[in-house]
Amino acid sequence: MRSININKRKIINDPVHGFITIKHELVFDLMEHSYFQRLRRICQLGLTYLVYPGAVHTRFHHAIGAMHLMSMAIDVIRSKGHSITDEEAEAVNIAILLHDIGHGPYSHTLEHDIVSAYDHETLSLMYMQALNREFDGRLDMAIDIFRGKYHKGFLHQLVSSQLDMDRLDYLRRDSFFTGVSEGVIGSERIIKMLNVVDDQLVVDAKGIYSIEKFLIARRLMYWQVYLHKTVLSAEKLLEITLQRAKDLIKSGKELNASDALLWFLTHDKTPEDEVLERFNKLDDSDIMSSVKAWVKHDDRVLSDLSDRLMNRRLFRIELQKNPIDPAYIEEIRKRIENRFGLSSSEAAYYLYTGETSNAAYSSMDEKINILKHGKLYDLTEASDMFDQATLSHNVIKYYLCYPKDVM
Amino acid sequence: MRSININKRKIINDPVHGFITIKHELVFDLMEHSYFQRLRRICQLGLTYLVYPGAVHTRFHHAIGAMHLMSMAIDVIRSKGHSITDEEAEAVNIAILLHDIGHGPYSHTLEHDIVSAYDHETLSLMYMQALNREFDGRLDMAIDIFRGKYHKGFLHQLVSSQLDMDRLDYLRRDSFFTGVSEGVIGSERIIKMLNVVDDQLVVDAKGIYSIEKFLIARRLMYWQVYLHKTVLSAEKLLEITLQRAKDLIKSGKELNASDALLWFLTHDKTPEDEVLERFNKLDDSDIMSSVKAWVKHDDRVLSDLSDRLMNRRLFRIELQKNPIDPAYIEEIRKRIENRFGLSSSEAAYYLYTGETSNAAYSSMDEKINILKHGKLYDLTEASDMFDQATLSHNVIKYYLCYPKDVM
Amino acid sequence: MRSININKRKIINDPVHGFITIKHELVFDLMEHSYFQRLRRICQLGLTYLVYPGAVHTRFHHAIGAMHLMSMAIDVIRSKGHSITDEEAEAVNIAILLHDIGHGPYSHTLEHDIVSAYDHETLSLMYMQALNREFDGRLDMAIDIFRGKYHKGFLHQLVSSQLDMDRLDYLRRDSFFTGVSEGVIGSERIIKMLNVVDDQLVVDAKGIYSIEKFLIARRLMYWQVYLHKTVLSAEKLLEITLQRAKDLIKSGKELNASDALLWFLTHDKTPEDEVLERFNKLDDSDIMSSVKAWVKHDDRVLSDLSDRLMNRRLFRIELQKNPIDPAYIEEIRKRIENRFGLSSSEAAYYLYTGETSNAAYSSMDEKINILKHGKLYDLTEASDMFDQATLSHNVIKYYLCYPKDVM
Amino acid sequence: MRSININKRKIINDPVHGFITIKHELVFDLMEHSYFQRLRRICQLGLTYLVYPGAVHTRFHHAIGAMHLMSMAIDVIRSKGHSITDEEAEAVNIAILLHDIGHGPYSHTLEHDIVSAYDHETLSLMYMQALNREFDGRLDMAIDIFRGKYHKGFLHQLVSSQLDMDRLDYLRRDSFFTGVSEGVIGSERIIKMLNVVDDQLVVDAKGIYSIEKFLIARRLMYWQVYLHKTVLSAEKLLEITLQRAKDLIKSGKELNASDALLWFLTHDKTPEDEVLERFNKLDDSDIMSSVKAWVKHDDRVLSDLSDRLMNRRLFRIELQKNPIDPAYIEEIRKRIENRFGLSSSEAAYYLYTGETSNAAYSSMDEKINILKHGKLYDLTEASDMFDQATLSHNVIKYYLCYPKDVM
Repeated sequence: MRSININKRKIINDPVHGFITIKHELVFDLMEHSYFQRLRRICQLGLTYLVYPGAVHTRFHHAIGAMHLMSMAIDVIRSKGHSITDEEAEAVNIAILLHDIGHGPYSHTLEHDIVSAYDHETLSLMYMQALNREFDGRLDMAIDIFRGKYHKGFLHQLVSSQLDMDRLDYLRRDSFFTGVSEGVIGSERIIKMLNVVDDQLVVDAKGIYSIEKFLIARRLMYWQVYLHKTVLSAEKLLEITLQRAKDLIKSGKELNASDALLWFLTHDKTPEDEVLERFNKLDDSDIMSSVKAWVKHDDRVLSDLSDRLMNRRLFRIELQKNPIDPAYIEEIRKRIENRFGLSSSEAAYYLYTGETSNAAYSSMDEKINILKHGKLYDLTEASDMFDQATLSHNVIKYYLCYPKDVM
Repeated sequence: MRSININKRKIINDPVHGFITIKHELVFDLMEHSYFQRLRRICQLGLTYLVYPGAVHTRFHHAIGAMHLMSMAIDVIRSKGHSITDEEAEAVNIAILLHDIGHGPYSHTLEHDIVSAYDHETLSLMYMQALNREFDGRLDMAIDIFRGKYHKGFLHQLVSSQLDMDRLDYLRRDSFFTGVSEGVIGSERIIKMLNVVDDQLVVDAKGIYSIEKFLIARRLMYWQVYLHKTVLSAEKLLEITLQRAKDLIKSGKELNASDALLWFLTHDKTPEDEVLERFNKLDDSDIMSSVKAWVKHDDRVLSDLSDRLMNRRLFRIELQKNPIDPAYIEEIRKRIENRFGLSSSEAAYYLYTGETSNAAYSSMDEKINILKHGKLYDLTEASDMFDQATLSHNVIKYYLCYPKDVM
Repeated sequence: MRSININKRKIINDPVHGFITIKHELVFDLMEHSYFQRLRRICQLGLTYLVYPGAVHTRFHHAIGAMHLMSMAIDVIRSKGHSITDEEAEAVNIAILLHDIGHGPYSHTLEHDIVSAYDHETLSLMYMQALNREFDGRLDMAIDIFRGKYHKGFLHQLVSSQLDMDRLDYLRRDSFFTGVSEGVIGSERIIKMLNVVDDQLVVDAKGIYSIEKFLIARRLMYWQVYLHKTVLSAEKLLEITLQRAKDLIKSGKELNASDALLWFLTHDKTPEDEVLERFNKLDDSDIMSSVKAWVKHDDRVLSDLSDRLMNRRLFRIELQKNPIDPAYIEEIRKRIENRFGLSSSEAAYYLYTGETSNAAYSSMDEKINILKHGKLYDLTEASDMFDQATLSHNVIKYYLCYPKDVM
Repeated sequence: MRSININKRKIINDPVHGFITIKHELVFDLMEHSYFQRLRRICQLGLTYLVYPGAVHTRFHHAIGAMHLMSMAIDVIRSKGHSITDEEAEAVNIAILLHDIGHGPYSHTLEHDIVSAYDHETLSLMYMQALNREFDGRLDMAIDIFRGKYHKGFLHQLVSSQLDMDRLDYLRRDSFFTGVSEGVIGSERIIKMLNVVDDQLVVDAKGIYSIEKFLIARRLMYWQVYLHKTVLSAEKLLEITLQRAKDLIKSGKELNASDALLWFLTHDKTPEDEVLERFNKLDDSDIMSSVKAWVKHDDRVLSDLSDRLMNRRLFRIELQKNPIDPAYIEEIRKRIENRFGLSSSEAAYYLYTGETSNAAYSSMDEKINILKHGKLYDLTEASDMFDQATLSHNVIKYYLCYPKDVM
């Protein structure tokens, strides 16, 4: 039973946006719910802090920041003569607040390794529906907006599109906490330039340079932070460590882990009526404390991988434009077996390849509409600089990871 | 066996100070040691993030920031004609880097609850000595400086005094991450004003206004962050939860907890030769994952306290200038017993009182020397504004915590 | 005839406060008036840029910034349940926008040297009244608020009091442009803490640390910027240069100067019906271009003083706690006469003494009311740290200026 | 005779870069020279403050900032193993400090209208040579570096190239003071990535995203600030006003203006041996005070243009991708003649067309070399995103200006 908090705290200090005022009582109640409080224990950027030590900010903080930008966007759009009712404003605030509530620990990395049966979007929706039942249907409109079923489509675009409040917050927040100051985007200015035409979210023409800069800053954040090679290497190591743990369990070995994590390691499919309660117990601390415990496990592979993760002895990562030469992979594999005296199946945990890619912009699936002299243009038409080919060019990089001490 | 990292990363992004360059190879090796890496998993401000969601920065980051300021201070002092050898520069950098390495999880709160036999200063020294053995005596001078035994006393003052690099970093860092922008101190300017006279660290006269501002900003941080009433209440709740766990163990109950934490909960005294290894396994994730597990414990007190902590249902805290009236305490106690149907010994976990205090400055134990026309003055003599009585006035506040739903 | 600007620019970029939106059409029209545009050509901090090269910001910018803070304050006070009509909001915005419109070039320095018959407050009011006539009485309420005659007294306090929007803007703006980052005050936080009780502007109790910090930051700005000794010395030099010019004119000498300046140099009293038009032609460029021309004047005193000012060959300034010893002054005077071969009346332009003073706070003339548990306290009662004596302690410094090359 | 300043001020507060330390005594002496002090009275961005009120920063401040970045660049390049002697460090600091000393008031606008016989580069070199004579040849090496005649070519590139310290300072400074925060470039990071290969200034490969962002930010600053349509319109108005003044003088009319300006208005060619002394008397205040005086001139065209400039009644500007239709121009011209009752020659001052262009990057004249695995690539080869065609695409815009009230 949640006690009622009479004296509601209404202002939150945010080093990124300054003071954030919580305007709606329902929003405040949702924030206090244990479903949302869990996000306090989940880092927004997973293991990125191994490269950028400041990047320890949480999904909790990001969700509130995105909601703050949403309030600003609502004010701007209203000031340009478009009607948004108070009920809609509350609903779209709730939709953005809860848009990522289904993320688990190290979601970017582990999404399909822990709760394989449900992806995070599905879980987010399940959470919202559970909250809606608990709050007597007061989230109906928020859910409609989230799912793109509400008749004012631009409200959905504020929650999920190329220029949604999610991105405008996380790019700015991630560059703030990593200290990659060049990734800073002008969220405030972009929001001032938002407008609505034919129920579409658009950008006023004079915001075009800001949008160009936004795309470049986003790209910089991708290569410098989100796809940073050392971060990739760390994430792969965590993934493979979890994989080894699951493989050991399958082969009948005993394993220490928190109850919450153990459930998911030992069950491929959790029944729908208990997944939320079980998932809600899971956060970064389960992963970290379990991996730490595994350092002492008597399986040498699990123990070594866990120790590498805890003490930042990450694998070397080679990144290149062309696919890795299979002969080279084979050579490394041999070295690993010889150097560490591992069987071929054990050695598989010490070598992995993959690819990573990023395109600045694709007008196929996610347009940015520019409003110029009353007409709409796709960004690539409106921009003097970016053309379709350049912007949508998908950069692929191939990588190979293996222990440094093998070479 | 730690592999040697040939390709040493030399620059760290810090959102607070910008780029931090690691100048000494030994410093870099120490940073990579598992003793130091553990600090990545310990929040600098414990549970403060329950009030200021951005305050999730780690002791790891703070230690590196303090070392960065130390490098700046060394440059300034050298530029004013005082000799500091390269060896001394390395040693004082190491001393500041490791000055807090003995802190445990939620150290501010739990220091005496988990590892009661050793305080964090003792543990820091033990860590340094262990590292010194591992690095063949190369930390000798750093340890001498840390302990105040090195013949150049001002080097110790840079590590530990009223104006040490520890404070200059943590005040700035804590205000950065909490978003309490008024707590920002002018670290850079204060460092530019540092000087040495008669082996004493002093401040050039024209820095006096910056020092006054520093003291006021520090005081503001104390009342607004470090001693924030909601933070106090959360810390007390954590303390009492751990206490309940220990009490249950003493009375023979079984308890889930990580191995590392369980050891300390069940041992009052850890032998000196194994304390570091055991302690080094302990971090915030042990506390959080254990408390989370206890929510399901069948002891209703432990379960309820744990649930309150996880879901931020904190106790109400009353704060006042005078000691709490015993009759009022007694009245609350009765209500708790009646409202929750608790025995008197159980009710004790739901009610606690204490006091907290802060003085801006005491020239008794920690002077700030101002250098004016070649002579030294205590700050209170040199300042037009602050006098001894005002600055050293110790403000005491008394508090009482209990569940909100009892009233 | 002013042409009507159909396409009104509504947003102004401010590096200090971000985007500033002009909400009222009348405000925008006033900003476009030549009376207000003149403020673009008047530096907020006069000659301070000779010490802080960034301090070239204008009174124009400050007035707009103060108005922006006023809009924030109105929102805060309304959100706490106090009624402010739209008409009042517009009026108090106009009152703050125009509060300093009567300042002339180097007003701080030259106020009584150029337009001796009217001080800047009188001129500000005269400007407002002239604008009121031109805008058909639409400034009636703004003028009432400015003069403290409007029945809601707190509106006047927002324009002029210890915590008015004028101060909250200029302290922040001046520290921004000088780069004296320690002078930064938390304008936004202080404004969030404003409230109204019994028609008095008050500060909510939890804002008390911010107020303490505000007073200390203000004091720091006084000693480090506003009363900086080199700035004082430069201002005195400008004053004495103008004085020499006026004295030469009185003695019948010819002098180059802009028409606008020449009028005021040659007239002690300007008739009230033409003072505004004449004054409105006067700005910093008149002073600078005239002083520059005087470098070539054949009066050696005027020429030398002007050359010193243009090329930053300022006088030495000695600053001390006690009045300057008359014997020492006499000694310097003798040196000046001998060194430069000047008559005693000429030497008078090369030597001046004065005093400067600052108190952090005086509860006599300007109270800050703190609202605590529904009751009002003066700041010095409510603060644990500051007492009446400390805060109102008036620090006086005495100074003596003379050419460096005389010693 | 300049008096010697014994007590040299060594630290300058810069809101952009923080504290700037002046390391070389000769540099300090040059800064105190009247040639350099003149830059205090010249706005870096001319009339841009009519759109961005904060943009009142001076060429003086920019020159010092660029020198500060030069010191950082020297440290970085030295730390990568390239030798730069102390003498070279001083010389390259002087070269950047003085690189723009030949700029006159509103140089961007008026360069060829006031001192038509010498462009600003020529004047800068003449200033340096004059200073070199005064300082006994101590600027020899600085001049060689400035002219690209010194044998270490990369030193010249630090002063003048695609990535010179001039640009790295002005882009950052201009975005700081305008408040166009999206124009902020990561000067510090770019400088950290500088290197030297084969006597060429190059950028380490991992800096490539920062360079891409730099080019985009620069482009944004061009369109949003430097070529802002209202700024263009204001500059054109100033140009045409000066032109009218010169034309009146040619036709024998009398004109008020400061002596310094009057000389240049009445002389097409100033003899080389007196141009510096005359030019050195000229700054923004001459233009502003003269234009202000002309408001009262009896030539109605000069008077009206001057009044428009003083009171910001700027011309409308139409900007488009294609050249303006001559028929449209003719139509406007007719309207102007009719509406204002002007002769055809007078009307010419009220209507002007022109074009403005900007390309992000041209690898023809100004390469940026990227160092990748020991080899050099042009940016357009090394970048995944930018190709030659996109980056060097020259965007041309055509404009037409005329009074708003004619339509």
